[in-house]
Amino acid sequence: MSLLKNEILKIKPTNKKLRTEAKKKLDSLTKPIGSLGMLEEIAEKICVIKETTTPVIKKKNIFIFAGDHGIAEEKVSAYPKEVTAQMMYNFINGGACINVLASHIGAEIVLVDSGVAEDIKSDKFINRKIGYATKNFLKQKAMSKEEAEQSVLSGMEVVAEYAENSDLICVVDMGIGNTTSSSAIISVITKTDPSSVTGRGTMIDDNTLKMKIDVIEQAIKKHKPDKNDPIDILSKIGGFEIGGIAGAILQAGILKIPVVVDGLITTAALLLAYKFNSDILDYVFASHNSFEKGHKIALQYLKLNHMLDLNLRLGEGSGAALAVQIIETSIKILNEMATFKDAGVSEKNVD
Amino acid sequence: MSLLKNEILKIKPTNKKLRTEAKKKLDSLTKPIGSLGMLEEIAEKICVIKETTTPVIKKKNIFIFAGDHGIAEEKVSAYPKEVTAQMMYNFINGGACINVLASHIGAEIVLVDSGVAEDIKSDKFINRKIGYATKNFLKQKAMSKEEAEQSVLSGMEVVAEYAENSDLICVVDMGIGNTTSSSAIISVITKTDPSSVTGRGTMIDDNTLKMKIDVIEQAIKKHKPDKNDPIDILSKIGGFEIGGIAGAILQAGILKIPVVVDGLITTAALLLAYKFNSDILDYVFASHNSFEKGHKIALQYLKLNHMLDLNLRLGEGSGAALAVQIIETSIKILNEMATFKDAGVSEKNVD
Repeated sequence: MSLLKNEILKIKPTNKKLRTEAKKKLDSLTKPIGSLGMLEEIAEKICVIKETTTPVIKKKNIFIFAGDHGIAEEKVSAYPKEVTAQMMYNFINGGACINVLASHIGAEIVLVDSGVAEDIKSDKFINRKIGYATKNFLKQKAMSKEEAEQSVLSGMEVVAEYAENSDLICVVDMGIGNTTSSSAIISVITKTDPSSVTGRGTMIDDNTLKMKIDVIEQAIKKHKPDKNDPIDILSKIGGFEIGGIAGAILQAGILKIPVVVDGLITTAALLLAYKFNSDILDYVFASHNSFEKGHKIALQYLKLNHMLDLNLRLGEGSGAALAVQIIETSIKILNEMATFKDAGVSEKNVD
Repeated sequence: MSLLKNEILKIKPTNKKLRTEAKKKLDSLTKPIGSLGMLEEIAEKICVIKETTTPVIKKKNIFIFAGDHGIAEEKVSAYPKEVTAQMMYNFINGGACINVLASHIGAEIVLVDSGVAEDIKSDKFINRKIGYATKNFLKQKAMSKEEAEQSVLSGMEVVAEYAENSDLICVVDMGIGNTTSSSAIISVITKTDPSSVTGRGTMIDDNTLKMKIDVIEQAIKKHKPDKNDPIDILSKIGGFEIGGIAGAILQAGILKIPVVVDGLITTAALLLAYKFNSDILDYVFASHNSFEKGHKIALQYLKLNHMLDLNLRLGEGSGAALAVQIIETSIKILNEMATFKDAGVSEKNVD
């Protein structure tokens, strides 16, 4: 654990002085002060992370982490577990939603196999397989503590290697069964009853939902994960790709790169990252408020505001890619709008 | 009124058969059915309006309507009324928020003077001035019925002339004092108490807000606008640019062009358009849920869902331009994602 512990200490809180400078710049632009609401907060946060009031977002990377889940044996998903590998090929062939979105926003995809149940026959992905699917955590721990640590480290390494010159990254998940694992993580960390954080995932029916909640309740009762120990949680009820995403988020903090989280699964991974080092939130943007009720609870716990309200429940980076467009818009406004002085527009009446 | 009445009858409900076809196409794509939430509803609505399941959005126009308001004499705004004309020059010189956003989304701006209090010295706008500011509606009607009708017709004409080949349009407002007029319109049409629909506009203080609410209450009491007669409402408590926007929205319906509304003012104009012909809603997209509380009430009355939650209160098309990016993303997904069949991905388990 010492390597991981050392790495995590490298994340430092951002320098808030930049926020004052960014705010001053925004207030000089031809609009009522603060009238662009969250767009201004987003632009400020980017300035603070990048330590400049003229930030640029050019190179963007989308990191997809995929892994299979032993818990899928309990039939908690509406899709067969083979879909995880099939979707890997869909990502590789460019036909998935996130491919379309990545091309639309001009981002490059980095596809990582963190633990898909079969070998992927292609050279267009990064193999960081920790294992061939996690174990069924209703019966035993999902993975060993060493594997949990390794999954986080591998996520950190991938981002260090592929995002060195990135101006912004998004984290994306794929894994049949991973809403069950994520709901369990959110339940433990936010201390919320499983029935309140567990949603329909791929739109399972009432009976399956009841079973899914039951599985989570039993697993938490059996393993008693320590809510302040992310490795303990990850090893008992987590997933390989969830560990990878947590590591990717942490590395973004180390490298001072803004990181956009997507839906339920990436936000569960963010909760783990937060338990490693709470300063990570200085570098994170929440994109949307998904259909999955556990997502909202996790965002509230982290006190992160969402930008979009589109009832998305695909995951797969759909919300994150849309949020990138909003972030880029906010930066464009910051850099290109005229000031009151330049435009000769009167400022607010002084009473 | 007969010319206007004739025009308005040209708006027809859309052909819902296309919705079934669009849904079928969306359901064949490699994602759980409906998992893209509102993105799918948006893509469907575009298909229905454009009568194709392979819609294209290339040419986009942003129509800015500007006008001054006699009610500004009552000091209901935090900015002096000269700002309306000053912002016209800012639009012309490309320094305003909407200029930055238009360039970002690749849209062309059409700037219309519907009733600015002074003559704008430039040839880079369209002069459809109905008058030099409306009258102070606390003391008298804002405009005559003829002027009200003329403002709507001029908005229709401008869109007919400049959006003939547009794939999508946005409507945008500028006018110091126009949140007062818009809040009054929303209060009348939705039958909601002025204090519940009136917000802080450009962030006026408590006293000014109290006065603004008082002004609206008195004006409604004095003029008793007929909530089912948009010309009556517009003439008594409206604005020239609000009439222009209502006309622009109606013309989009006639030409079967999707139209995106922005914040409080354009949504007040939409309420008027809706009172002319309720079928117009088939062609309209709401963009965001603004900071102004009257906006939410108007959207609820129209049963329109918003896409963005950014606490915007600038108006000026900021929300609409962001919404265009979401609409374009939804169309890209519809047209470019792989189907289950093509990608060899298993569909949902059948129980």
